[in-house]
Formats: sequence, structure tokens, C-alpha cells
Amino acid sequence: MSEAPAVAVSTVIFTLRPDDDGNVRLAVALVRRIRAPYEGLWALPGAPLDSNDDLQTAAASALYTTTGLEPRYLEQLYAFGQVDRSPDRIISIVYWALVGADEAAAARENDNVAWFFADAIPPLAFDHSLIAEYALWRLRTKVEYSRVALGFLPETFTLAQLREVYEVVLGKQLDPGNFRRMVESADIVQPTGLRLAGTPHRPPQLYRYNPTRDLTDPDPLTRVASASDTGNRDDIRTLGAAS
Amino acid sequence: MSEAPAVAVSTVIFTLRPDDDGNVRLAVALVRRIRAPYEGLWALPGAPLDSNDDLQTAAASALYTTTGLEPRYLEQLYAFGQVDRSPDRIISIVYWALVGADEAAAARENDNVAWFFADAIPPLAFDHSLIAEYALWRLRTKVEYSRVALGFLPETFTLAQLREVYEVVLGKQLDPGNFRRMVESADIVQPTGLRLAGTPHRPPQLYRYNPTRDLTDPDPLTRVASASDTGNRDDIRTLGAAS
Repeated sequence: MSEAPAVAVSTVIFTLRPDDDGNVRLAVALVRRIRAPYEGLWALPGAPLDSNDDLQTAAASALYTTTGLEPRYLEQLYAFGQVDRSPDRIISIVYWALVGADEAAAARENDNVAWFFADAIPPLAFDHSLIAEYALWRLRTKVEYSRVALGFLPETFTLAQLREVYEVVLGKQLDPGNFRRMVESADIVQPTGLRLAGTPHRPPQLYRYNPTRDLTDPDPLTRVASASDTGNRDDIRTLGAAS
Repeated sequence: MSEAPAVAVSTVIFTLRPDDDGNVRLAVALVRRIRAPYEGLWALPGAPLDSNDDLQTAAASALYTTTGLEPRYLEQLYAFGQVDRSPDRIISIVYWALVGADEAAAARENDNVAWFFADAIPPLAFDHSLIAEYALWRLRTKVEYSRVALGFLPETFTLAQLREVYEVVLGKQLDPGNFRRMVESADIVQPTGLRLAGTPHRPPQLYRYNPTRDLTDPDPLTRVASASDTGNRDDIRTLGAAS
């Protein structure tokens, strides 16, 4: 085996979806393999890298082909390149993406494309089970110190909706009062002055992302992101532009 | 341009070195390009990925070829794949590595391989200036929440030596008393019971990494690292095995 390694780009696509009991849960988009190897098994969506595509473009394309959606957040996860991870030598550069729950509810599903709850992912083809597990770990880690949770929400949202995102991603209940104080002190969001429509007396306030707040510690890739698509790694501000 | 993208692996190699005034500073190993494009410019060490090598093996190999050394710490940084980053389409999977100051002092240097202080890196070939800047950012970020600083030190060291690593990497002085309390409360190191030789009365205690302390939050790649070389990303415990 001495052919040059091939490059593929795959994307771990997260969203929030209600289960049959109406509980919102974290979900991942998977595609069923329709040819060998691992024919019939589920796998992460992806494709060989086209020479004319940047990596991030290819990752967004895998997302669009699978779900018909645009990413609200998109970040490189890791390059997987074990010699024995596939019968042919393939380096998979994997991204992870967040898709708004509203858009995901309308996303296409069929026999070969489906959303699986993150705590009930079947055994996947290749090393994709490990990749999905690592992406989940990254999401859970990142939600604690960044504003990535906003990637699941529409442009305006209530604090209860924002808290629900944290609760679903972290898999634990959060105290509403403590959560409100955390959000206010972190200056993550700002009130819109509007209130949620269609709710009886004292409808909750609607918030939006605070665009005036700089990131505390933007990395060098984020700083060049406005000039190219290399980066956008930690900057939730790019969500608006991408969606 | 529709040839398949090629894959290269490069490594940003950090160590600590004294300058002419005896001040210890952060340094990066660079190689001079001896052919086009960018002939004569300095660049990060790297090579096309051999089909039989895992990514991490290739990254360690770039380090060994350049410096004759083994990494004390080695972690994937990012995959760089902009279409226009090179005349040919090359995806560079970049690692960053730490080399012990003791070993680096004996490392080979010649007209085409040299250590540059991190705050005085010349303009580099390709997008390597951005890559080096991002690696520096990752090192500085990581030293604040992990035990990666130990990668610069020999097996036993004084608290003053450990503090110096933090000061050099972060580029600021730290209060010795606060630093001692931070290290003790984080349970990062343990006393060896030995003291530094060759120092007059009250020689300082020697410490070593605390091998009984679990990582607070190992990621899924680290957990499989014992079975493969995919991971070892956050685990300073792997330093001993690699060095």
C-alpha cells in the first residue's frame, strides 16, 4: 500500500430535537452507507475533498447535502489519519457543526439520512463512533466556556430557552436563578425589549446575542477569519453571517 | 487544477533556550527552504505524508529529522487547507511539540536548521507565520489549564524552574508565593524528597510530576491513546513514554 493518502472531509452535525415524549434532546445527523465497506451501517456525512474547495467549504457542503441546511456554527474538530482506519488510506478532516433547532425540524430525512439522539447512536462505520464521541466531548466542553450554545437558537430567545440548551448539552438541570446571574455577569446576551408572543400575562423577555461584546481571547485563526474561511473557530458572531 | 490534494505533516517545535544575556526564552525550530517556492525563506519542518505512517508518527519524524530529538509532548494543532496556501494543493496537518530544554541545548543546528526566539520569528514561507502564531496561542492557552509546562523540564525540577517555564511561556512575572500555592492546590507535582545538588546551604527541593493524579477531564482520544497513537492529546503522562 503505497498510494498517496486521499483526503475526505466529514461533519458531525448537532441539533436539538424533541423525542416522542416532547423532551428536547441532542441529536446527530447520520447517513447510511450504500456501498462497501461497512455497507448498511450508519456513518458521518462526508465526501472526498474536491481540489477546488477549502476544507470549511467542504464541511459545509457535507452538511448541506445531508440536511439541506446551512451551519449556524462550524469548527474543525480533528484530522483522523490512522493507517488502518479504512481499507484505503484516507485522511478524514472532521468538522463539527450546529444547526438551529427550528431549521432542523424542517430538515429532510429518509431511509438513508436520519437524526439520532446523541445518547443512542448505533455502532458507526470506520472510526466514526470514536469521532462522534470526541465531537460530543468537544461540544460539552466548549459550551461551558464559550457562547456556542447560541448556535442552536433562533435570533431571539428567552433565557429559559437558552438554559434548556445548556441543560440538554450538559445533560443536567441548572438552577434558573443561578443561570440568569451567570448569563448576566458574562454579558453574553442583551434584552431586545420585546417579549415572547402568544403567552398569557407576563410573557418572558426576548434576548439576543450581544454583538458589542468582544471575545475574551480570540485566537489567531479567528482574527484572520474575516479575510478568509480558515478560521471562525471560536467566534459565535460568525453564526449570523453563515445562517 | 483538479489533481487530488496532497497531504503533508508539519510540526511546530517549541523549547526554552537562553539568549546571549542568559535570559531563558521560548524558541521555535525552523528550517530554511532550499528550493522553490519560497526558496531561502524559513519554514516549519515537515514532509509529505508517507502512506505507511500515522499522522503522529509523521509529526514526530519531522521533529527527529530536524533536531535529532524525541518529543516530550506532541499534539495535533490544526489541518490547514486553503486552496491558495501553496502553488500545489497541499493539506498540511500540523502538530505542535515540546522538547526539553536540556535536550534542545544539545540539538543540532546548521545553516538550514536553527532555533528562533518566538518573539523574533522572521516572515515564514507559505502560511507558516499564521500557523506559528496559532501554535503559540495554543501553547499559552494550554499552559494555563494543563500540565503541559512539564514538557519543557527534566524528570525532576525545582518549583523555581517550573515557575520560570510559566513565566517564559506567558511572558509575565509570577509571584513565587502565589505560584507555590497554585501548584500545591492543583496537586500537579510531588516532592521527590531530594534536593538540588551543587547549591550552597538550603538547596531547593526537587519535584516530579504526580503520576497518581488523574486528569480532570480526559477526552475520548486520550482514553484510546493507550491502544493507538491517535490521541495522547492532553495527557502529560505520555511524556515519559515518548521521551
